[in-house]
Amino acid sequence: MSTFGQLFRVTTYGESHCRSVGCIIDGCPPGMELEEKDIQPQMTRRRPGQSAITTPRNEKDRVAIQSGTENGRTLGSPICMIVQNEDQRPKDYGNQTMDMFPRPSHADYTYQEKYGIRASSGGGRASARETIGRVAAGAVAEKYLKLAYGIEITAFVTSVGNLHMFPPTPECPTPSQNPEFLKLLETINRETVDKFLPVRCPNEEASEKMADLIAEYKEREDSIGGTVTCVIKNVPSGLGEPCFDKIEAMLAHAMLSIPATKGFEVGSGFGGCEVPGSIHNDPFIRSAETAAPESGAARNGIPRPKLTTKTNNSGGIQGGITNGAPIYFRVAFKPPATIGQAQTTATYDGDKEGILAAKGRHDPCVVPRAVPIVEAMSALVVIDALLQQMGRHEAVRQLPSNNKSMQPSDNGVSMIQ
Amino acid sequence: MSTFGQLFRVTTYGESHCRSVGCIIDGCPPGMELEEKDIQPQMTRRRPGQSAITTPRNEKDRVAIQSGTENGRTLGSPICMIVQNEDQRPKDYGNQTMDMFPRPSHADYTYQEKYGIRASSGGGRASARETIGRVAAGAVAEKYLKLAYGIEITAFVTSVGNLHMFPPTPECPTPSQNPEFLKLLETINRETVDKFLPVRCPNEEASEKMADLIAEYKEREDSIGGTVTCVIKNVPSGLGEPCFDKIEAMLAHAMLSIPATKGFEVGSGFGGCEVPGSIHNDPFIRSAETAAPESGAARNGIPRPKLTTKTNNSGGIQGGITNGAPIYFRVAFKPPATIGQAQTTATYDGDKEGILAAKGRHDPCVVPRAVPIVEAMSALVVIDALLQQMGRHEAVRQLPSNNKSMQPSDNGVSMIQ
Amino acid sequence: MSTFGQLFRVTTYGESHCRSVGCIIDGCPPGMELEEKDIQPQMTRRRPGQSAITTPRNEKDRVAIQSGTENGRTLGSPICMIVQNEDQRPKDYGNQTMDMFPRPSHADYTYQEKYGIRASSGGGRASARETIGRVAAGAVAEKYLKLAYGIEITAFVTSVGNLHMFPPTPECPTPSQNPEFLKLLETINRETVDKFLPVRCPNEEASEKMADLIAEYKEREDSIGGTVTCVIKNVPSGLGEPCFDKIEAMLAHAMLSIPATKGFEVGSGFGGCEVPGSIHNDPFIRSAETAAPESGAARNGIPRPKLTTKTNNSGGIQGGITNGAPIYFRVAFKPPATIGQAQTTATYDGDKEGILAAKGRHDPCVVPRAVPIVEAMSALVVIDALLQQMGRHEAVRQLPSNNKSMQPSDNGVSMIQ
Amino acid sequence: MSTFGQLFRVTTYGESHCRSVGCIIDGCPPGMELEEKDIQPQMTRRRPGQSAITTPRNEKDRVAIQSGTENGRTLGSPICMIVQNEDQRPKDYGNQTMDMFPRPSHADYTYQEKYGIRASSGGGRASARETIGRVAAGAVAEKYLKLAYGIEITAFVTSVGNLHMFPPTPECPTPSQNPEFLKLLETINRETVDKFLPVRCPNEEASEKMADLIAEYKEREDSIGGTVTCVIKNVPSGLGEPCFDKIEAMLAHAMLSIPATKGFEVGSGFGGCEVPGSIHNDPFIRSAETAAPESGAARNGIPRPKLTTKTNNSGGIQGGITNGAPIYFRVAFKPPATIGQAQTTATYDGDKEGILAAKGRHDPCVVPRAVPIVEAMSALVVIDALLQQMGRHEAVRQLPSNNKSMQPSDNGVSMIQ
Repeated sequence: MSTFGQLFRVTTYGESHCRSVGCIIDGCPPGMELEEKDIQPQMTRRRPGQSAITTPRNEKDRVAIQSGTENGRTLGSPICMIVQNEDQRPKDYGNQTMDMFPRPSHADYTYQEKYGIRASSGGGRASARETIGRVAAGAVAEKYLKLAYGIEITAFVTSVGNLHMFPPTPECPTPSQNPEFLKLLETINRETVDKFLPVRCPNEEASEKMADLIAEYKEREDSIGGTVTCVIKNVPSGLGEPCFDKIEAMLAHAMLSIPATKGFEVGSGFGGCEVPGSIHNDPFIRSAETAAPESGAARNGIPRPKLTTKTNNSGGIQGGITNGAPIYFRVAFKPPATIGQAQTTATYDGDKEGILAAKGRHDPCVVPRAVPIVEAMSALVVIDALLQQMGRHEAVRQLPSNNKSMQPSDNGVSMIQ
Repeated sequence: MSTFGQLFRVTTYGESHCRSVGCIIDGCPPGMELEEKDIQPQMTRRRPGQSAITTPRNEKDRVAIQSGTENGRTLGSPICMIVQNEDQRPKDYGNQTMDMFPRPSHADYTYQEKYGIRASSGGGRASARETIGRVAAGAVAEKYLKLAYGIEITAFVTSVGNLHMFPPTPECPTPSQNPEFLKLLETINRETVDKFLPVRCPNEEASEKMADLIAEYKEREDSIGGTVTCVIKNVPSGLGEPCFDKIEAMLAHAMLSIPATKGFEVGSGFGGCEVPGSIHNDPFIRSAETAAPESGAARNGIPRPKLTTKTNNSGGIQGGITNGAPIYFRVAFKPPATIGQAQTTATYDGDKEGILAAKGRHDPCVVPRAVPIVEAMSALVVIDALLQQMGRHEAVRQLPSNNKSMQPSDNGVSMIQ
Repeated sequence: MSTFGQLFRVTTYGESHCRSVGCIIDGCPPGMELEEKDIQPQMTRRRPGQSAITTPRNEKDRVAIQSGTENGRTLGSPICMIVQNEDQRPKDYGNQTMDMFPRPSHADYTYQEKYGIRASSGGGRASARETIGRVAAGAVAEKYLKLAYGIEITAFVTSVGNLHMFPPTPECPTPSQNPEFLKLLETINRETVDKFLPVRCPNEEASEKMADLIAEYKEREDSIGGTVTCVIKNVPSGLGEPCFDKIEAMLAHAMLSIPATKGFEVGSGFGGCEVPGSIHNDPFIRSAETAAPESGAARNGIPRPKLTTKTNNSGGIQGGITNGAPIYFRVAFKPPATIGQAQTTATYDGDKEGILAAKGRHDPCVVPRAVPIVEAMSALVVIDALLQQMGRHEAVRQLPSNNKSMQPSDNGVSMIQ
Repeated sequence: MSTFGQLFRVTTYGESHCRSVGCIIDGCPPGMELEEKDIQPQMTRRRPGQSAITTPRNEKDRVAIQSGTENGRTLGSPICMIVQNEDQRPKDYGNQTMDMFPRPSHADYTYQEKYGIRASSGGGRASARETIGRVAAGAVAEKYLKLAYGIEITAFVTSVGNLHMFPPTPECPTPSQNPEFLKLLETINRETVDKFLPVRCPNEEASEKMADLIAEYKEREDSIGGTVTCVIKNVPSGLGEPCFDKIEAMLAHAMLSIPATKGFEVGSGFGGCEVPGSIHNDPFIRSAETAAPESGAARNGIPRPKLTTKTNNSGGIQGGITNGAPIYFRVAFKPPATIGQAQTTATYDGDKEGILAAKGRHDPCVVPRAVPIVEAMSALVVIDALLQQMGRHEAVRQLPSNNKSMQPSDNGVSMIQ
């Protein structure tokens, strides 16, 4: 379905060439300051036409809030946000060849199989424009997370093709064992990431090489994939709902719902399979962390968890529940399916072979523009888990416990003492 | 929450040391033959104590159907299935040390943070016994999928530690480009997999090495991770619900909800990021496939999709929707957290450091027993997507279309013609 | 939440004085002809300013489809529909008195209690303008129901104040035992209902008396309640999901979610409690009904149920499942809370008593305009239950049954033979 | 589906003649004392065989908690509760006549239409035994509601046949205008109700007459309907989720999902339609109420709402949200369909008329036993709305507001100040 989340519930709509695209958020906490200028920056980071290595489709992507706020504050009612589709060029796509032949590895064929009909041009619902509603909703979620708990979400590009920022080695099969990587997680933020435009890989040398590689693929009308890594800091402990809605399960769901994704790994990930348990286990140590300054939680005197871990192969999650350490994960994006090169394919009914050369506008590599989308989806997962845990915490707080050791302290959403 | 699925909805219950564990299935198609003997084989493949390299906890894990069937047929009403917890040994766990110190990388600390209370012994809800309800429900789903469409789901072990069945190479960064791997997907089945017990890696040499490696880790009271690959064959085209509930998103959600998982990749996966689009794209060709014999779909004359793809980097999924080619994916399992070696950790309140040596019973490597769990969760994802698409197909069939080309033929769940 | 339905899922947004109001439909069957002209008639029947006895707020309520259709056909993707708020007059409401004093029996106080903030003017989310999204979505659902099964939904006013079209008598405590009422159910349609504007009570004498009564209440700046009865014809058998989502439970949920409703009764209803079981039970008889002509079901040769009932105290529903006979129910609407008369109330903090005389624009009696809203919500319930049952029917059809008597015939959504 | 609730989610299972019936609760607040003895009293109030005027089926209905608690406290994990089916007598039902003929107004025919199969004996899933899981879950919910907020839920019988405890009069068309009724709501509790066994109508004269009437219907092998009124006291303000999940919509959904129900009215209900707005509106006055003593909310110093209403035609709900005044509503139960008298009906295929005389065991009037079921479903609605609002309240509490007047005070779940 086009709905994501239980308590902060986002429903998106829109195809590549319809009147508008957008979303409705249901369940946003009331009383939060919210204006279009809070949302626009991420829209702009996502929008096409940002640089020579992104699609030339030119959309301003100005978001307009329709409902759910008054005098710059949320009312608690549904927030509808709309972006007009302006630079539609259906003719780029709607030619006779493309009507007869499904584009290889694109969604033309499967949409036709599923619905018995498909949008005649562009990617329809499978277009990247579908992600606009996600990014708008994510920006609202992020604002709350920042205000309430100082939660910071930052994504960045960690590989393009076979150029890796932190390549695995036999000794160190996963970046989670690489001190340089762990240090980067601590310091990285969006301002830094955007200094490395157009690629958004926060390492000068790697970034330049990646830009060159993308340009190379663009020139030969080909495409290439890459990975995006994301870190979420200042997350309270106790988020994530066992057993099916573990926080990593929700993150995996969210990430694999982004177009063109092929993989997800959290913490030590695939490389962690090669590390012995005795090294992989993260010893608990006393936490030195204090609540994020300026956050509501800090002003309300809510402490951070008492423990943290010495290493963080767990990626901040144990048993599907956050432990308060940074959450980090990596997402794989395949090479975009739409390429300019001629490709052999077959007609929808299989009767005829043919050659297809896509026109249209497309990115040779999606990872730079995927960065805000990964951030948005992360925010949607975290806020939903947070709201669920907040309700639980409040529910326990009203239980008159006769067993003092079980009485939760008033420390936000976690209940230990 | 403990509920999975929209139309074939499974709710599980149970901790490691309570009276029983199990599940309720809501939405199982009525009129299907179903007895306990249909479910027991997968329960037995999952159960502990199978071999020298699995946990010695001895549970018969006999499933008892409580409701939802009569005279060996499903009624369409909820099916409750129960397995008694027999070999509980709370004392193995509930010692004073373990009450004071959370086990590193286990769920002790986070459960306490989340709930303000935790099961005093064993893994509680985070125990692998929680997966019994999943496997029971998956077996019911599988039976339907096989009967109706001849769908076959087979998982097997593809790596233990750094021993890989199909190691990536610079030329071939992903198994999806390895002809030997693709051939294995076509032929593999559960009978073959179980010939390679105790590891369930269907390659004699690799399997033996893996068994030795696991035994080695067991001996030094350590643990090691690994990966499980799963293939789903004879899937109809058209399954998967854009945009958030893409079939790969649901599979990722399902897999990352299994305890101890750290990653998921579908089709070409992470390695696919390194392959140019011109090679990665899967050209469409006419399909030679016919419906699985003996299936209801075959008896009802429902054809398979007219197209398939020459290569299958997509893993049978395009735009979040199945195209009819085999779906395959890989899941990463970390080294089990519970190890016999002494580990440094801290008390729950962070006041004291301490040394913890876990007693209890545990697996040195979970992948062999994870195989039926991966299969079960796959079945739950596929049946839910299938039921959703079946409803859509039927809904379209009743539309009196005046546009002949849009009239879906009666070909099961896909609507193209 | 602002979402209704599982498979045909509607999310609405909008307050009385924001930019626009509307909805997103997720799950509409693809390939259906759909244009704004299909939706507008019900919008117009709902809109304010229709007559001297409705609110003078003047809104054209023109609906604009944003997405989900192309070339006049649904794509299966989300359909967003928007209506601009044009005739906003916040100043009518936003005066100092109304900021300090919650209006008696209105939602001012409870919204403030719930959200800690409220829309400063008009009803905010509690305004009747919230129902615009419902009516738009209902019109889409109705189109499908008509095309596929010839389902007809007609609501009409059956009482205003103590003027009843079918008053209960000791001998006949419920209209379900009144032949005249049952005959009306068979013949009534929207064209007939609208001949009795402005009240929409399809009986000349009653209608005139009701119009006079409403005018009387309007004159003295007071308000009065009434009831709306709704009948749904040509419903297939087998709709409704035991146990919690019985069709009458979903209808009750839907109706009591309409602003100003206070009661719901189905079939014999409250009066039926007074009828002995021996009379109340509906004997089964062979059905003479044939499928609605012109419907997709008729064209596909799908028969109507073989049985019907001689009487219909059940209101077409037994055990929470439709039996194919007409569904009918009655909904109670209270007198509107906003009246011109001065009323004593208290400040939000309870510190001060005060006198409040509502300005703003309001209806003296809501039942005439409630008619299309009741129809819309009925359509949303029926289409969701229908899509669920269609999926089940299709699922059973693919089961290769070896028990011939259980093999469902291909008769639409019901499975008996 | 067989699932009810979003955050306190109950899934039930079981038919009349299967091994066991019961439920899983997901989302129960952790750390609450809970033992079987907390649940058994309501099970016993519901069970058959209580008196000469209920069905003679003899079931002890002993509930056994399977999971989710340890040492008498909830863990926050799913709570599975089971009741064995002991006194099954399938032969009472499974005779040839009943296999051929659907019982009039029972669910035999519609279950067969829906599922293509039905339980061969008893009511299957439509049996009243299905309500056991509801009552067990409701008892757990009630315990929380009582402990946390001192919420009290009491249902009682207000009519049997045409014998009404508070009959409508032209002057007073609804009990909500009857001072005697309003006074009863304030004082009534379960102990009082059970003094009026077997009918549970808390008025000696009415109760005796009703018992006689039921006995009369029993003697002539007939049945009769009645109504149950329910009051919920000490509810916090702010519960209920606009727009579709208004608290009265959820209550209506819950009540109409109970077998044999035909109607629901809240507050002034159907009679309220006849009362002018100027009288029907409930003036706000300062509240004198204090928090329920002994509750967690009282111990935490959480105040009750500052306002209440002078009259209570609203039934404690305005705009779909609780205002803190008592919620009350009435539910109509039809005469049970299973009666001993011979009835004319037709075979499933409509080919033959026949005479059916039901054997089996059944109640001549269900309202006395419906009392605990109505209470249970009320509790499930209230706890779910409460948990949703608690999460919202906690979420707002962490917003660093720079607008002091919007800063919610820490007064539990409502946010006004």
